[in-house]
Amino acid sequence: MSEHKLPSRSEDFAEWYNQLVLRAELADYAPVRGCMIVRPYGWALWENIQQALDRRFKATGHVNAAFPLLIPQSFLEKEQSHVEGFSPELAIVTIGGGKTLEEPLVIRPTSETIIGHAYARWIKSYRDLPVLINQWNSVVRWELRTKMFLRTLEFFWQEGHTAHATYEEAEAETRQMLDIYTDFAVTEAAIPVIPGRKSESERFAGADQTYSIEAMMGDGKALQAGTSHNLGQNFAKAFEIRYLDKTGELQYCWTTSWGLSTRFIGAIIMVHGDDKGLALPPRLAPIQAVIVPIFKTDEEKAGVMKAAHEIRAELIAAGIRVKLDDRDGLTPGFKFNDWEMRGVPLRIEIGPKDVANGTVALSRRDKPGKEGKSVAPQEGVATLISETLDSVQESLYKRALAFREANTRAPQNYDQFKEVVEKGFAISYWCGMRECEAQIKEETKATTRCVPLKQESQEGSCIRCGQPAREKVIFAKAY
Amino acid sequence: MSEHKLPSRSEDFAEWYNQLVLRAELADYAPVRGCMIVRPYGWALWENIQQALDRRFKATGHVNAAFPLLIPQSFLEKEQSHVEGFSPELAIVTIGGGKTLEEPLVIRPTSETIIGHAYARWIKSYRDLPVLINQWNSVVRWELRTKMFLRTLEFFWQEGHTAHATYEEAEAETRQMLDIYTDFAVTEAAIPVIPGRKSESERFAGADQTYSIEAMMGDGKALQAGTSHNLGQNFAKAFEIRYLDKTGELQYCWTTSWGLSTRFIGAIIMVHGDDKGLALPPRLAPIQAVIVPIFKTDEEKAGVMKAAHEIRAELIAAGIRVKLDDRDGLTPGFKFNDWEMRGVPLRIEIGPKDVANGTVALSRRDKPGKEGKSVAPQEGVATLISETLDSVQESLYKRALAFREANTRAPQNYDQFKEVVEKGFAISYWCGMRECEAQIKEETKATTRCVPLKQESQEGSCIRCGQPAREKVIFAKAY
Repeated sequence: MSEHKLPSRSEDFAEWYNQLVLRAELADYAPVRGCMIVRPYGWALWENIQQALDRRFKATGHVNAAFPLLIPQSFLEKEQSHVEGFSPELAIVTIGGGKTLEEPLVIRPTSETIIGHAYARWIKSYRDLPVLINQWNSVVRWELRTKMFLRTLEFFWQEGHTAHATYEEAEAETRQMLDIYTDFAVTEAAIPVIPGRKSESERFAGADQTYSIEAMMGDGKALQAGTSHNLGQNFAKAFEIRYLDKTGELQYCWTTSWGLSTRFIGAIIMVHGDDKGLALPPRLAPIQAVIVPIFKTDEEKAGVMKAAHEIRAELIAAGIRVKLDDRDGLTPGFKFNDWEMRGVPLRIEIGPKDVANGTVALSRRDKPGKEGKSVAPQEGVATLISETLDSVQESLYKRALAFREANTRAPQNYDQFKEVVEKGFAISYWCGMRECEAQIKEETKATTRCVPLKQESQEGSCIRCGQPAREKVIFAKAY
Repeated sequence: MSEHKLPSRSEDFAEWYNQLVLRAELADYAPVRGCMIVRPYGWALWENIQQALDRRFKATGHVNAAFPLLIPQSFLEKEQSHVEGFSPELAIVTIGGGKTLEEPLVIRPTSETIIGHAYARWIKSYRDLPVLINQWNSVVRWELRTKMFLRTLEFFWQEGHTAHATYEEAEAETRQMLDIYTDFAVTEAAIPVIPGRKSESERFAGADQTYSIEAMMGDGKALQAGTSHNLGQNFAKAFEIRYLDKTGELQYCWTTSWGLSTRFIGAIIMVHGDDKGLALPPRLAPIQAVIVPIFKTDEEKAGVMKAAHEIRAELIAAGIRVKLDDRDGLTPGFKFNDWEMRGVPLRIEIGPKDVANGTVALSRRDKPGKEGKSVAPQEGVATLISETLDSVQESLYKRALAFREANTRAPQNYDQFKEVVEKGFAISYWCGMRECEAQIKEETKATTRCVPLKQESQEGSCIRCGQPAREKVIFAKAY
């Protein structure tokens, strides 16, 4: 319920976000610091994200499974950079069934180790490869600064883990999953993303190569919205994941992992939301269209509700996720605000005049005021609404893309660079040196987001040190 | 893969079960004692169970959400019988982010407490009721004697949690969910179940009333396959879940919870399986029909594979979950055994003669030898297979029901009772006294499974003590 206005998005983006999450009833704080409760409306959004991804995973030959939550602490120590990356963030179970455990167990922060251990037992021969498994679960990382959806102690995600016979196959899988994330973000979430390669310092702990999709939020900051890792033979060697090749030789496998989490919900909020609240892309919205009946007298109510139910039935038959808001004791105005807060893409109003005229009034969530309003005949309304939802989806994407383009610059020098990353993406040559990257971060708070896969094959000089550079990089402040 | 035979089901049921779980690749042992990995084939079965239940939950107005894994230890202590029931089984996190926690956290053994805490904040008025939320997750209970699917430290389930204005509504919800579990077991899993009320000693820790569905396994033992609890106002009072009624008075809510877990997979195995392996009910089977091509020469292969692909496409178009087993280097006989082990309901063989005659050979998993075999024309095969799958579903149910009926008796005296519970269900009058129930358990290892909801309104005398009794009870040894 939205009893009072949200803070202005342009004036206080952080507070706008926090209040929006609570007021749209996407999530709530949990009793344990840094944890969240994903409320039914937020979870319905996540279920739609899950379905859209799971369909793509299965179409490319992946299957789901479930690996345990509890991992022996010693497992984490088997891969050197992995343990360095994750050990400060672990939640550790030391007591089970009233007794102190001989070996403490960690709650999985990610599952490469326990899955590696299983793959070592399951994979014997080249005939067993590739292994293409995904799981939907939650993981725990003891984060200090938390923010709902973006960074929580426990978060929900999918983690794919695959094993292959060759480097080339593993790299192809890593890139395929990056493509799937890109397609998902663009097609389903109406979020333009930049797929690219992470710098060495931004890689996953234990990966040879990390790829990510990077999106621009409404405040110009970047959000890493999905990652895909080529793990080389690092985990295969740590866990002895080996196979007999066709010539009878024992070989180490090549493995990958890739994940997308509830953090993506944060991206949807921050890309599409406005001062009135959420604006959900129709393809993922739990409710695509809401019908608000308007009447004063009982007689008016009878006619209006009859028409409302008919339209509802027609939309359901057309496969549209529709809600009829028949709550008593609330004004239409209150309901309008409430559904705008929750980001429902399309509102359908029906009043006595509409009943008389055989019409409905439509309001698009993506276009404020008169621009988004129209009157349509009830006849054939399902087709019109279906088309309008497609149009909303497209317009959200175009708006997000235009915003990103307007806030992405190629600065001429380091002073300009500093200005650009204050409110957007800088696309600049970088020498590739870790020290230079660290200096830029210290001086501007901007980090290398990714080396976009699309590069014009040119050469230039590093935006900071002036040394020769061969690749352009996206720099930005990031969530 | 099934390189050698399973132990005989009739000779060593326990070992038959354990090996079947591993060999059908439903699950595997995890590195932590008592945990399991649910492998892709087992998880695909669970996904079908999830969909069948989730559809029913949503059709009755429930929504999904996600509550945190970690619960402050003090929460468990707020409801007296709840803490007594669960505290010996807790896994406790004492270290987070490298530091000892001020208050230890438990990994949820069930979520009444953390959800009660949230409901107390969310529910203000009668307008907010009922709250009908479910979640799909895993929970951890530190069990000492474990068995895959049946009793594991971590298991997967759904837990529904609802809050209502009145006792009557809560009781109606509790019974509705029991009905849904019953319908699911019968319709989807082909498992006959007895819905009933639990005795006081068998109730959920914190419930006023527990209902369950009880199924008979292939060794005559009982398995509690789903439970639904009327929690009265116990958790409402412990967590201050209150609402303002229409007169403005503050009232405690009435709450329920209900759950069905991966233990149900154990029931499917133990009800339908045989010496050859699993036998899955078609409505839940990940693969409903498998096509095994048979050929010797390359020329034969070309014709057979063409026909196999055509039939596969036709079955997919008809919505049948089909797999074409085109693995090289394995004999048809090996493949037959392999898919029988995995319980695929229907096998379709295509050889050169079938290609010449325009036929296929069908083998039903539920009927051994010649009885289950037939030859059918390729033309119209999708319709025939669809009908055959329905027939397999029905025959599995009838077989399980006949087995249960043959092994359910109403003993005349306590000596007969002892015999009956050695290999089946005894349906007997019970005086209702806890002491008598405990004595029976000690003397026979049989426990009260449930008081069936269907009772002929008669009176009798307790099977053990002879005192007057008004209700018949199912007694059995149980998993």
